[in-house]
Amino acid sequence: MQDIQNSPAEVSIPIDRVGINNLQLPLIVSDKTNGRQHTVATVDLGVDLPASFKGTHMSRFVEALENWNEELSYQSFKTLLMDVRKRLDARKAYAHFRFNYFVRKASPVSGSHGLMGYECSFTGQAEPGPQGSDRFDLCLGVNVPLMTVCPCSKAISREGAHSQRAVLRILLRQKGFAWIEEFIELAESAGSSPVYPLLKREDEKYVTEHSFANPRFVEDVVRSAAQSLEQHPHVSWFRVEVESLESIHAHNAFAVIEKHCSST
Amino acid sequence: MQDIQNSPAEVSIPIDRVGINNLQLPLIVSDKTNGRQHTVATVDLGVDLPASFKGTHMSRFVEALENWNEELSYQSFKTLLMDVRKRLDARKAYAHFRFNYFVRKASPVSGSHGLMGYECSFTGQAEPGPQGSDRFDLCLGVNVPLMTVCPCSKAISREGAHSQRAVLRILLRQKGFAWIEEFIELAESAGSSPVYPLLKREDEKYVTEHSFANPRFVEDVVRSAAQSLEQHPHVSWFRVEVESLESIHAHNAFAVIEKHCSST
Amino acid sequence: MQDIQNSPAEVSIPIDRVGINNLQLPLIVSDKTNGRQHTVATVDLGVDLPASFKGTHMSRFVEALENWNEELSYQSFKTLLMDVRKRLDARKAYAHFRFNYFVRKASPVSGSHGLMGYECSFTGQAEPGPQGSDRFDLCLGVNVPLMTVCPCSKAISREGAHSQRAVLRILLRQKGFAWIEEFIELAESAGSSPVYPLLKREDEKYVTEHSFANPRFVEDVVRSAAQSLEQHPHVSWFRVEVESLESIHAHNAFAVIEKHCSST
Amino acid sequence: MQDIQNSPAEVSIPIDRVGINNLQLPLIVSDKTNGRQHTVATVDLGVDLPASFKGTHMSRFVEALENWNEELSYQSFKTLLMDVRKRLDARKAYAHFRFNYFVRKASPVSGSHGLMGYECSFTGQAEPGPQGSDRFDLCLGVNVPLMTVCPCSKAISREGAHSQRAVLRILLRQKGFAWIEEFIELAESAGSSPVYPLLKREDEKYVTEHSFANPRFVEDVVRSAAQSLEQHPHVSWFRVEVESLESIHAHNAFAVIEKHCSST
Repeated sequence: MQDIQNSPAEVSIPIDRVGINNLQLPLIVSDKTNGRQHTVATVDLGVDLPASFKGTHMSRFVEALENWNEELSYQSFKTLLMDVRKRLDARKAYAHFRFNYFVRKASPVSGSHGLMGYECSFTGQAEPGPQGSDRFDLCLGVNVPLMTVCPCSKAISREGAHSQRAVLRILLRQKGFAWIEEFIELAESAGSSPVYPLLKREDEKYVTEHSFANPRFVEDVVRSAAQSLEQHPHVSWFRVEVESLESIHAHNAFAVIEKHCSST
Repeated sequence: MQDIQNSPAEVSIPIDRVGINNLQLPLIVSDKTNGRQHTVATVDLGVDLPASFKGTHMSRFVEALENWNEELSYQSFKTLLMDVRKRLDARKAYAHFRFNYFVRKASPVSGSHGLMGYECSFTGQAEPGPQGSDRFDLCLGVNVPLMTVCPCSKAISREGAHSQRAVLRILLRQKGFAWIEEFIELAESAGSSPVYPLLKREDEKYVTEHSFANPRFVEDVVRSAAQSLEQHPHVSWFRVEVESLESIHAHNAFAVIEKHCSST
Repeated sequence: MQDIQNSPAEVSIPIDRVGINNLQLPLIVSDKTNGRQHTVATVDLGVDLPASFKGTHMSRFVEALENWNEELSYQSFKTLLMDVRKRLDARKAYAHFRFNYFVRKASPVSGSHGLMGYECSFTGQAEPGPQGSDRFDLCLGVNVPLMTVCPCSKAISREGAHSQRAVLRILLRQKGFAWIEEFIELAESAGSSPVYPLLKREDEKYVTEHSFANPRFVEDVVRSAAQSLEQHPHVSWFRVEVESLESIHAHNAFAVIEKHCSST
Repeated sequence: MQDIQNSPAEVSIPIDRVGINNLQLPLIVSDKTNGRQHTVATVDLGVDLPASFKGTHMSRFVEALENWNEELSYQSFKTLLMDVRKRLDARKAYAHFRFNYFVRKASPVSGSHGLMGYECSFTGQAEPGPQGSDRFDLCLGVNVPLMTVCPCSKAISREGAHSQRAVLRILLRQKGFAWIEEFIELAESAGSSPVYPLLKREDEKYVTEHSFANPRFVEDVVRSAAQSLEQHPHVSWFRVEVESLESIHAHNAFAVIEKHCSST
């Protein structure tokens, strides 16, 4: 049978990235508390393609996933990237996994437990480095819902202040190991209060009072998270964005800081 | 050329509805303040198909829209439904339009103006009625963002109370004419406060204090809207749902009431 | 502390359904091949609320899920519904789970394996039946991607025919046990061809030729699925909808049949 | 009343971008054929914030839009950016508009007309340039649905070939004026065939045969579009991505090329 993909390209331009996306996959992720947890990922995989080849062999991406079948960690992610590179005979391999990571969380007063799902992602690229080495660029994403209480509304009003759900989205590169849980905690302490899956009445009282004692603009939230990320010993670069579902508007408020951490 | 659609069906089962969906269309809508406004609609159109025919002629739906080219109103919507029925030689015709309807809204103290877009919909079906008449079933949808302040959080906390954005979704059948604006107002008075496109500091103070003076559960919101809809002289049936983006949780709270209004 | 929820309602109207939605949860589902599989669900839970009570105790829904912690099956779903009814002291309890169900699928010629995720759902309501019994209304949803080849395009063109991805969405009530896999197979045989996670060249040749030998309109697909569902010994009611991402248009084509199966 | 926003920041880190997003707005866009057209935009606006200020005045973004009220063009977009910078006393201003742009399109044989909506975007930033000048970075986005026929499937199969809807997403910077229509045409000629809102039978025959005579991988589509963009006299940079809703898989295929055009 003809291998059309291997025939010469009509237009001789190299392709930065070609592959498959939006593939659903059950996934096991390393878990700080329980060792491992089961979740579901949406996966994109790609490679670069030189100017001379007409097409990629798309089925090999799925074969790489079939063969991989591992618990997600930085190490296993690198293994997948290297395998994709080899199977597709490419210089660069790219992978992006989005998945819910679940943490059992206790409420602040009654200690009632419930599971919270945090949208996380692994994004990475492998390419040849100097002198036959391999260069990896890996990025972790963690999205954390928060509560924000408006400092302006609180300062100018006789009583109350508007509050709302916000989400803090962290993308970061690491220079040492850290658990996803560390970044969830870091994010949660940047808002007026964390959000919880389960709150009994005494917990709701606490969350309300605690959040009102800590009013935060999106500007405060993004700066606080940026400061913590900068001071984290194992973060080398980050982009942090907060988006707040303003309760007094139909539109949202947002703030973004991107930064290389000074190496110390 | 062969007309495959007109050939007999292999499986002789009548089809309840067949057609096209997710078609984008610029639309002019009747507007209480300005006479008319321009917006964009997403359109679904369908008909029933008897057991004996293999297929529908899908291009005729688009021709019906091309030919229609009218300002959206109950009357013009009926015209479209009748035209679809005729062009496709069907007993029943169905149409569903979703669009943003814009209202210029003044803030409560400074009177600052801004435009708010409300997601609205027209849904309708035409079919033969008794003695050669035509029967129409038309439904209006209006989605209105609101602010809710939690009564429990307010009652049990030393200060503050959590608040959040919520959305009230009304579906209704009318027995007389009413402007979309009437249902927006009705919906907004069911929450702790309306939301606004533009609030100056004095407005934000007012909205905060007003909403804190009117704490509402989703249960209160849906009941208040239901009561107003029941008492509206031109509403014969409604389904009203509120969904609240709880600021203390990552999940939402919702409440639904569906009701035929007693005719008086 | 005050129990505001238990205070009398200001507006004395019963609420059809009140609860929480969009809660993420890891889930174990009964699996025909492997006994059980891990996935992630999005969960809605609700109850009815009499006219006399101001509010529901929302935290009890999350407690019910925490306590449930079971493998999803018809039986365990009933257990959850009964527990929600009891915890919230309600007449009716409602639950809706949406989740990906994974099946390892072999390609038609080379037998290459890959995982396919199918969006599935369990929806159910429990309420009191006659003479102290409990009445359950349970509904299974299975969404299956398909390939359709257009019979008209094939018949009128010198060569080729446009094809596209479509999705068949089945909702059904059962009168006896059946595996999700049975409805996936039933759905896949209704299109021009199933879709596959992994196809080698010989498989792609087969799928192309097989699908071109079986051109199907959305009308053909929905009728074929309806016929199979009607003949299935354990289906008592269904609603089947196909939506086809037409490759020659930016809009989609759809067809729907809803039917009670004659009991035999 | 207190101006909390003007108080000093607790954490002294500059913010890259802070503002509002997801605001709905009716919009008039310059139109090649009719002079102007009405559509609806989703708008994001932002500014940078120095380390020393606690907060931005969010209401001024909405005031800028209220005051702007212009037909969208490169010139009016610059005016908005400059006004946002001034009102918020910022160094940098950012704006992003997403909207449907409608083109009346004739089918290839019968010349039947219908409207097609293309998702477009304007993205821009204004900041101080050298010697008191202003520097603008403006980007146009145009998303164009296409049909692709698989060359491999066609080459290896006795008859037929799988085809599908794809979407080509162009982002580009210009060095001279060009209509949106030019990029739509350029994109449509990169696929196996354009898609149409309305096709009569003779048109469907033509589109089928034309597309089968031009089978294209995503690799071919992205290269063809890249070549045309590179040769366009008024494009200085582009990123072009194609995503194909594979009819034989549940996942998609994609390809990306990003490039600075050599100035000639």
